[in-house]
Amino acid sequence: MQEIKGPSFFIGKDSEELISFGSGQPDLPPPEEVYQILPTYRDFKYGLIQGQERLRQALTAQYPKSSKEQFVVTNGASEALDLTLRALFEPGAKILLPTPYYYSYPYIVKFAHMEPVYYEQDKGKIVFDDFKQKVKGCKAVVINSPSNPTGTVQNLETLKKIEKLTKELGVWVISDEVYKDLIYVRENYLIKGKHVLTLNSFSKTYAMCGFRIGYLYARDVDVINRVIEIKTHVSMNTNILGQDMAFEATKVPREFIDSQTKVWKSRRNLIYEGMKDLGLDLWKPEGAFYVFPEMKNPSKVVSDLYHLYNIIVYNGAWFGDPTRVRFSYALDEEKIVEGLRRVKEYMGKEYKEN
Amino acid sequence: MQEIKGPSFFIGKDSEELISFGSGQPDLPPPEEVYQILPTYRDFKYGLIQGQERLRQALTAQYPKSSKEQFVVTNGASEALDLTLRALFEPGAKILLPTPYYYSYPYIVKFAHMEPVYYEQDKGKIVFDDFKQKVKGCKAVVINSPSNPTGTVQNLETLKKIEKLTKELGVWVISDEVYKDLIYVRENYLIKGKHVLTLNSFSKTYAMCGFRIGYLYARDVDVINRVIEIKTHVSMNTNILGQDMAFEATKVPREFIDSQTKVWKSRRNLIYEGMKDLGLDLWKPEGAFYVFPEMKNPSKVVSDLYHLYNIIVYNGAWFGDPTRVRFSYALDEEKIVEGLRRVKEYMGKEYKEN
Repeated sequence: MQEIKGPSFFIGKDSEELISFGSGQPDLPPPEEVYQILPTYRDFKYGLIQGQERLRQALTAQYPKSSKEQFVVTNGASEALDLTLRALFEPGAKILLPTPYYYSYPYIVKFAHMEPVYYEQDKGKIVFDDFKQKVKGCKAVVINSPSNPTGTVQNLETLKKIEKLTKELGVWVISDEVYKDLIYVRENYLIKGKHVLTLNSFSKTYAMCGFRIGYLYARDVDVINRVIEIKTHVSMNTNILGQDMAFEATKVPREFIDSQTKVWKSRRNLIYEGMKDLGLDLWKPEGAFYVFPEMKNPSKVVSDLYHLYNIIVYNGAWFGDPTRVRFSYALDEEKIVEGLRRVKEYMGKEYKEN
Repeated sequence: MQEIKGPSFFIGKDSEELISFGSGQPDLPPPEEVYQILPTYRDFKYGLIQGQERLRQALTAQYPKSSKEQFVVTNGASEALDLTLRALFEPGAKILLPTPYYYSYPYIVKFAHMEPVYYEQDKGKIVFDDFKQKVKGCKAVVINSPSNPTGTVQNLETLKKIEKLTKELGVWVISDEVYKDLIYVRENYLIKGKHVLTLNSFSKTYAMCGFRIGYLYARDVDVINRVIEIKTHVSMNTNILGQDMAFEATKVPREFIDSQTKVWKSRRNLIYEGMKDLGLDLWKPEGAFYVFPEMKNPSKVVSDLYHLYNIIVYNGAWFGDPTRVRFSYALDEEKIVEGLRRVKEYMGKEYKEN
């Protein structure tokens, strides 16, 4: 069977029988409130490049002491990262990334004409001594807690040490906190400082992936202005209706998020225990919606599970760890159970002979 | 009075009294049909990076012998240009631009780490001999007919010569045809060939600026694939709801566009004749919705008209021609008349002493 080279192989594949542990998108819908503005909506003109004022104003509630001037609304957190890196561009600059990493990071760095370098993680946790060495001389470092693909949340102590060290060294911290509301072990810790550039989006918290509403939050006015300048030319305002829908989401009571997190946590327990029962080596996810078990020959696992068992999983190699497989648990418990049943069958047969 | 440095100065400025010949966005609304899908809309998941199949399929109707695989739906034509240039990137490559130019072109080229060079236009028409010299050794050339800011449409003969010459030389043609349906003198001529990369959008034809739906159409599969690859990482799918609204627009009968063009043409005549009566030197626009009269000290004109007469106009220098002023006529005839009255008053007073 042919090797499956990346997540894009699976796009558009769908059937009744298929169980997808692949794509990292919530299956639960956004709050109903975001659709309530649609029936009477009639706007059509350009919006502010920086993003609609009332949306940015609403976002300040989530970031202590922030002001609406410190936000830029973007086409998802992806564009926020792309614009931020383009704003930071310097010839020959190095951008320090975690490994394993969200699979787009190295690409976005290269498309911004800079060089990705990597810091180590042990079972998804930052190895601070390694980090300390690698960060010197870098232009910026990306922190992603909670993490895709590891499902880990970094220790508070580590995050605070990183905050301090990068400040001393004058290295920008790009903190990708898109999973900040999907966290099971503690409150999210917002990495702080004038040298911190925070990325977030409405995709995970409010299940609004398809609408592509993300943002950059930064206290540094020069970075904000540079990002706005680039966006003015390369994409202009973010879809006005998506922004209005996102604004409605900001008004939804906190209970919406809490009730979602309850569902995620229950699924997390189900898949984690299920995998332990299968004898797989993995750590218990603390946030986001991924488990990341070690498996023999992940490339073959991805191919076998798809072709023989109608299951989509992602190769850890796509995220920089060729010894593991990523399972997203953004699907019904019923499907998780059936998926685990098939994985068990596979492990008793083809996997054993692997 | 302080110099006004760019269009962004005017963003958010609005009042009853203000007459804006500034921003290039239709004031007439999109077809009602695009809003009709909203009341029952409930989608939220990621869409295909390349764009929704049915939308791309619908677009093929506008491009003879095209197929849906040859389109990528983007965040406006701006992102289409940005991604296209990033896909064509080569160290040290030169991108040939018209002068005057759409004000974002030089920026987008520089943000893609290439070098903008310029070909001349005489009263908005390409000077082919100059073009012929300059195009040699360039990676790509941008053609924009009908043009922002000149309002000109290039001669058929010139476009065909360019088509042939660039093919022989192996230079990519990036044809920005966002005004293809706002044309008063003939049918639009679609520049053709395997080396042609066509940009378009729903912003002008269907007045959908704020929704940011544009696209790239190209027969070269490698460019298409490279653009999709970059978009996968830097912004992912274009807003799904915007795409669905654009799809509805493609079903609207041609009469919608024709009736809009009639309005534009009538306004064009009004402002053109009005400016001739004021003794201004300008050519008659053949497409888009801009007049581009020559004026003394445009920087002062922009500032005076704004501060003394409550009128927004754009400095030609922002488009590469410091001898002219751009007036968009995307506003009511009543306002055009009142605006011209104020300009006349200004010309009899402060302008004369300029």
